[in-house]
Amino acid sequence: MTENGSTRRGSWRLTAVGLGPGDPELVTWKGVQAIRQAQLVFVPRSRDGERSLALRIAEPWLDRARQTIVELPLPMTRDPETLLLAWRAAADGLVQAFQARDPSGQEAIQGVYLLLGDPLLYGTFTPIWRELGQRHPTIQVTVIPGVTSFAAAAAKARWPLATTSDRVAILPASYETDAAALARLLQDFDTVILMKAGPVLPRLLASLAELELLDQAFYAERVGMPEERLVMDLRSLPPEPAPYLSLLIVGKGRG
Amino acid sequence: MTENGSTRRGSWRLTAVGLGPGDPELVTWKGVQAIRQAQLVFVPRSRDGERSLALRIAEPWLDRARQTIVELPLPMTRDPETLLLAWRAAADGLVQAFQARDPSGQEAIQGVYLLLGDPLLYGTFTPIWRELGQRHPTIQVTVIPGVTSFAAAAAKARWPLATTSDRVAILPASYETDAAALARLLQDFDTVILMKAGPVLPRLLASLAELELLDQAFYAERVGMPEERLVMDLRSLPPEPAPYLSLLIVGKGRG
Repeated sequence: MTENGSTRRGSWRLTAVGLGPGDPELVTWKGVQAIRQAQLVFVPRSRDGERSLALRIAEPWLDRARQTIVELPLPMTRDPETLLLAWRAAADGLVQAFQARDPSGQEAIQGVYLLLGDPLLYGTFTPIWRELGQRHPTIQVTVIPGVTSFAAAAAKARWPLATTSDRVAILPASYETDAAALARLLQDFDTVILMKAGPVLPRLLASLAELELLDQAFYAERVGMPEERLVMDLRSLPPEPAPYLSLLIVGKGRG
Repeated sequence: MTENGSTRRGSWRLTAVGLGPGDPELVTWKGVQAIRQAQLVFVPRSRDGERSLALRIAEPWLDRARQTIVELPLPMTRDPETLLLAWRAAADGLVQAFQARDPSGQEAIQGVYLLLGDPLLYGTFTPIWRELGQRHPTIQVTVIPGVTSFAAAAAKARWPLATTSDRVAILPASYETDAAALARLLQDFDTVILMKAGPVLPRLLASLAELELLDQAFYAERVGMPEERLVMDLRSLPPEPAPYLSLLIVGKGRG
């Protein structure tokens, strides 16, 4: 299985699977197959409950008798040093799970790393992948893309994101909450997607009110999950901090 | 089935299904179910072969004995009047197909409109939907999101699009091909996704060379299809116009 017979661990494979926004029916066929074939299932732990959500979405295809489920703790912090240590520990934890499953290093072991949305858009996988590449380069990594939360939110809201010549900006809401910055963005872009809007919702709503844009935006939380909340009339939205798995889309919409 | 018993056509439903980038395995389970349940299957005709591609991707779930496949001609033009007439004709064509299937207007007919990627991101569905809403508002429309071509391209290229605080801009390449505009965008955004890059590829490559960014970008064409082309070393890419279904991503990548 390995390109070079002398390479131990050449047949250890890790696939990052984008589960999509939360509705198990929005997982791709390719993602389902990867989950079913895996002996090891890795999920991040702690980002506003993302762990249990990833497992919940994948539940129909998990077989706990045959598969080992490994939770990788990721702290809710912005401290670079703490994060770096956590990513390294996660990369090491991944490898230890492969080792525990295959002490000889000779078997073809497959692992999946499950995460919401798409793996390469604001996912927890990228920094762990980087550490994995540096510390354990023999594990082969592949990525299966997933439906993003903003595409799912737009579909639910019936809100076109872009036609022909439109421009779209995607950014974490925390960095663009003041009215001036938002106004500048909207000069250059037809649609602005503010990810993780919940925690800064009060300031975002105030900025939109100041710019008289409350009627050109909508808010979505935990799209596709049982707890989904879609608010088309922002005037009805309490200006209180809301969950992390949320977004606010400003734009022309159906105009 | 209708909210109001007196409303004819209340039970005619149209679902726009995002098929994803081209690999049938990247269609969502929800999309597959919608295709299987439909009596009418609509596909756009002419955008650089998108028609045959949509049918090809959906082929495993089509049943031509039971389903009617309707091609909606969409001209390759930017002339607003020609486009408007085409969109209206497509909306009327949709309704005529429902009428042909259900002259009484009493049955629960389901149609799907198939398109690549995600329906609300640069898809052909949005303008037809708008005309449909104005001309035939009784048809109920829903949208099933899909994996975008750029997420699939990033997965294939193993190229992270955004981590934590990164900002992403998505725009049609034709509008941002000169070096100054591209440089300005890259001041504000960590990743710039240039859609439909093929037709303007020579100018794009010249701009990237001028900005010394040839090593911080990659090119992808028809991702997930048998004709897929992924070029990580842009210096090896001939500066010739390429197909419409292509994109160029500039950013930090795995840096």
